[in-house]
Parts: sequence; structure tokens; C-alpha cells
Amino acid sequence: MDPNCIFCKIIAGEIPATVIDRDKDFIAIADVNPQAPTHLLVMPIKHYPNLNAFIDVLSNTVIARLFAFAAHLGASAGKGAGYRIVINTGPNGGQSVDHLHIHVLAGRHMSWPPG
Amino acid sequence: MDPNCIFCKIIAGEIPATVIDRDKDFIAIADVNPQAPTHLLVMPIKHYPNLNAFIDVLSNTVIARLFAFAAHLGASAGKGAGYRIVINTGPNGGQSVDHLHIHVLAGRHMSWPPG
Repeated sequence: MDPNCIFCKIIAGEIPATVIDRDKDFIAIADVNPQAPTHLLVMPIKHYPNLNAFIDVLSNTVIARLFAFAAHLGASAGKGAGYRIVINTGPNGGQSVDHLHIHVLAGRHMSWPPG
Repeated sequence: MDPNCIFCKIIAGEIPATVIDRDKDFIAIADVNPQAPTHLLVMPIKHYPNLNAFIDVLSNTVIARLFAFAAHLGASAGKGAGYRIVINTGPNGGQSVDHLHIHVLAGRHMSWPPG
């Protein structure tokens, strides 16, 4: 846990959030500024600052399970109409919290370009 | 290979494309309608219609390697300033070709909302 990280504080229960799903390694919460009818943030419980930091140290099994967790939640939220996954890394990506999180957006048609 | 899939035809060399990187399982090509100075499409060489179809049948190793391939290309293209990954699944996601592809965008600040 990073004591300065808002997502670590949410995971620790120090800041409230709407938890959608959770297993031993990952958690999905509702984005507080949703950009679609369903807008989830799927993240590892342990603190990794971004996607590359996560991928470069975790096992293939854990990496695959994170994406499967996000894809299954997206498919479920999309109700057959689909969903968009977005992962922001660094300032140009628009990353706002330095704790890896996967945006899962569903419930409306997502336009192009993607930001 | 799906004979009606434009990405399968690119992979087979039947339609030209700018190939950025390739290994035995995955290929990265330049998007023909780029939405950022760098806009890559990272995809499995074999045809899977979308992210869920890929995740539900492939091994953890292959799944993790696809995302590592994309994340490393993104970090390289981002030159320390970051990048955005976007995966569209189904009509609401904005998926335009039914062959799983990961958008990797870098070289400008990506805005919010992501489409």
C-alpha cells in the first residue's frame, strides 16, 4: 500500500467507494465521475503505479486474470451491446491516479476519437 | 484466418499495411486513420472476433504476452510522456473490425472523456 494513494485508501476502507466486485487480487469500483451509464475502475489491490510497472513484474497468470476480470465485467455490463476498455499511462495518456486502473465503460455508444 | 476479415487479409499480405512489429503470435500495424501522432493496432495473428472471445479460449501466457506486447510498444512510442490503450468490444464500444485489436495512442495529450 502507498499511503499517499487514493485507490490504496479506498481498498483499505479508509475512503468510501462503491465496490462492484472483488477477489483476492483485484477490485472493481464505480468511477465517481462516470463517463457512461456504467463506468468501472478495475485495479489490482496491490499498488502498481501504471500498466508497465504491473506487467513488468507480475506473472502471466496474474496479468491474464486482471484482463479477464475486466473483460468479464465489461461483457456483463454491456448486456450484449459491448463496452470500451481504456487504460491511461502517464500524462499524455491522461492518467490521473498513479495506481494502475482499467476503465470499463458501457451503456452508451462510445464515440471516436477516444479522447 | 477469416476470409472476410480485413485484418486477416493484412496479416496474410493480401492488403498492404505498415507493419511496426511482429512476433509469432502478434502483429502491430499503423492505423490508417490515426487519432494521434502514433496510433498502432496490436492484434493476434489468429482471428478472434473480440476481447472476450480471445480471453475465454487462450492460455494465460498468450493473454499476458499480448498485453505486454502492447504496453511495451506504448511505452516506447510515448517516450516517457505516456500513452493510452483502448479496446472496443461490440457496437457500443465502437468496434469497427471484428478481429480483436488493441489501439495504442501516443504523441499527444489524450483528453477525457475517452469517446
